[in-house]
Amino acid sequence: MTSLIRSWVDSANAPDSPFPLNNLPCGVFSVDNSAAHCGMAIGDFIVDLTMLEAKGLLDLGAARLFDVPVWNKVMEAGPALWAALRAKVTALLAEGAASRAAVEPYLVPRAGATLHMPFRVAEYTDFYAGRHHAFNVGTMFRGPENALPPNWLHIPIGYNGRASSVVVSGTEVRRPWGQVKGPDHAVPSFQPSRRFDIELEMGAVVGTPSEGPVTVAEADDMIFGYVLLNDWSARDIQAWEYQPLGPFQAKATATTISPWIVMKAAIEPFRTSTPAREVPQLPYLHEPRPMLYDIALEVALQPEGGAETIIVRTNYAEMYYSAPQQLAHHTTSGCAMNTGDLLGSGTISGPTKESRGSLLELSWGGKEPIAIAGGTRTFIEDNDTLILRGQCRGDGYIIGFGDCTGKVIPALADPYAR
Amino acid sequence: MTSLIRSWVDSANAPDSPFPLNNLPCGVFSVDNSAAHCGMAIGDFIVDLTMLEAKGLLDLGAARLFDVPVWNKVMEAGPALWAALRAKVTALLAEGAASRAAVEPYLVPRAGATLHMPFRVAEYTDFYAGRHHAFNVGTMFRGPENALPPNWLHIPIGYNGRASSVVVSGTEVRRPWGQVKGPDHAVPSFQPSRRFDIELEMGAVVGTPSEGPVTVAEADDMIFGYVLLNDWSARDIQAWEYQPLGPFQAKATATTISPWIVMKAAIEPFRTSTPAREVPQLPYLHEPRPMLYDIALEVALQPEGGAETIIVRTNYAEMYYSAPQQLAHHTTSGCAMNTGDLLGSGTISGPTKESRGSLLELSWGGKEPIAIAGGTRTFIEDNDTLILRGQCRGDGYIIGFGDCTGKVIPALADPYAR
Repeated sequence: MTSLIRSWVDSANAPDSPFPLNNLPCGVFSVDNSAAHCGMAIGDFIVDLTMLEAKGLLDLGAARLFDVPVWNKVMEAGPALWAALRAKVTALLAEGAASRAAVEPYLVPRAGATLHMPFRVAEYTDFYAGRHHAFNVGTMFRGPENALPPNWLHIPIGYNGRASSVVVSGTEVRRPWGQVKGPDHAVPSFQPSRRFDIELEMGAVVGTPSEGPVTVAEADDMIFGYVLLNDWSARDIQAWEYQPLGPFQAKATATTISPWIVMKAAIEPFRTSTPAREVPQLPYLHEPRPMLYDIALEVALQPEGGAETIIVRTNYAEMYYSAPQQLAHHTTSGCAMNTGDLLGSGTISGPTKESRGSLLELSWGGKEPIAIAGGTRTFIEDNDTLILRGQCRGDGYIIGFGDCTGKVIPALADPYAR
Repeated sequence: MTSLIRSWVDSANAPDSPFPLNNLPCGVFSVDNSAAHCGMAIGDFIVDLTMLEAKGLLDLGAARLFDVPVWNKVMEAGPALWAALRAKVTALLAEGAASRAAVEPYLVPRAGATLHMPFRVAEYTDFYAGRHHAFNVGTMFRGPENALPPNWLHIPIGYNGRASSVVVSGTEVRRPWGQVKGPDHAVPSFQPSRRFDIELEMGAVVGTPSEGPVTVAEADDMIFGYVLLNDWSARDIQAWEYQPLGPFQAKATATTISPWIVMKAAIEPFRTSTPAREVPQLPYLHEPRPMLYDIALEVALQPEGGAETIIVRTNYAEMYYSAPQQLAHHTTSGCAMNTGDLLGSGTISGPTKESRGSLLELSWGGKEPIAIAGGTRTFIEDNDTLILRGQCRGDGYIIGFGDCTGKVIPALADPYAR
């Protein structure tokens, strides 16, 4: 395991800083009402790459990469450029670097910056690839003996989501209306969702595009980095709509991602293997090396004006399928993948009750309310804020992902009032 | 019903021309290796709107609309501009127009032109909204008494598809590999699809974007036009993967659309109502006026070197849900819709055997081969070409959609060979 790379940005050397020089996550920020720029977090600051490039301090030999406020150009450029970028920025920010005086004017305090979507999402796919989550949900709906669908141990089950629903951390999420029908009702009704939920996931961000089927190793090379991802889910809408073609409006209100894309190189020391296969896997899904990461994850729930309670503690290493396996499977049909495609891991539940990654599981379908500071919850109540956090713990440093936060605001009184 | 609008382009006045002046469908074309331009089909020609705009012959008072070879700028501009565009081009091409001499140099023969994707697809959603199709497929899988899922008569069931799979007519479609498992096999295998199929659909093209929920009337206003759509489907992959989250790789190989977007105004005289509701519908799905269209549809199958056989004859009026209903439902959750979103109607099967819009239904799951010139078919064989056609039949004129064609070429011998 590597150790801390020291920077002349002092705050980046603190053992509890989420953004040491080892991390250099990719975001888009603005200050006051200025134009949004691309930047990387470093300690308590953001280094403004749009300005460094414009001033000739960051030349990667390519056409301008940071003149538009999204990371898609860099993402598309591929692994060699990603490595060159990290090497150059590391050199500029390293302890003792001669470039300090030239670069320092382009450090912006993180505290005063607004963070925007770090990339333009091409398409969004969500998976169902956590063993414990699939078992828990299956048990609730079909009993423990039929919990896992027959295909589950063979296919990283996924479905296409809605790219237009993806928003950056901090965006308020309005409780949706939808068509629902309870088992005791003869006909459906149209009403605000009463079982609005989170799903704690990681998102893999596709950098380089592909045309035909790719191997797991090729898929890993295509991935630019990872974000935290909250796949907000209206369970009552989902229960009524999802047969036979899968979730649709239940998942289309919002999908919140953390504002920093953590590049693969930053989390390379934390690679870990998927769990032992329970059945033999087809060769196209074989992993040539560890493809998961040891990322400690938690979810906090904070009612309006109240204290936050940590309601979930789990780890990305609980996944049964890795993102490169998911991406490889995604291409089997010849499906073209593009720069900016986003793959949700699926809900990351662990084996214990505390490690369940959704309120559906935590409250066992709403039957067992969980305790929070000053109350209980089955599903999300209006004005609750949900915060996903993640970090890799290294030798004297951590790699943080930045909070993935969303406050749920009340449903519209009349969604069709103009 | 309106009658033929005569043009100085003689071939547009022929009663069997798919592209009279009443139609003016929107496409993107190139000749030899020149740059792709936006154009409208008129008789045997394409009128080059990119050139008309550049030469000052087509001024809509907006910034340049045709300087990029996709129709998205026009689509986003909204109904008033769409109407103004049709009025101006109609005036330029009308019989007796003084502008003939100025415009005629910018007519390009259709026969020599290559047609490209007419718009940049934002996201692609596919529905399952044909009553006969849902009943046929449900009967095959669950028996006639349980054929329709409980939600089907209440919700226009849809799922998100893959925008990167959408290709223009004429693009070859490679038979996909995929994970399949037959009922007689203990474990799945990875192999080329043996049950590759068509789905005869219409596609609705979203013009103006929306943020919150929209009514059916507002949804209708957002739709720019319609295309023919073939949702290629690998039935063996679909059968193994689709539970519990819906079709994924089975539908991701390709989705072919016809090259001309027929604007709503062109098919306005052919509006017709959805069938009588079998159960009361929630108010948010109520249609204020007829929202389907009387569009005669057919599918031809042509083996390599052989004669074509018409294997399907049906009509878009067979749909249970209209595209505006589908679009309104799509927004209930607050899901943002964008310019270039494409909504597949779902397979358009009628009540008779000949009107079934997929080979799955025509051959009843592969059990009853259908006759074609010189042979039989259950599913598509290598080098078969499938051609979807559609037209509205007016008083002395027709509104054609242009062929939606794809040839299925053999699967790769090894999809991972590099």
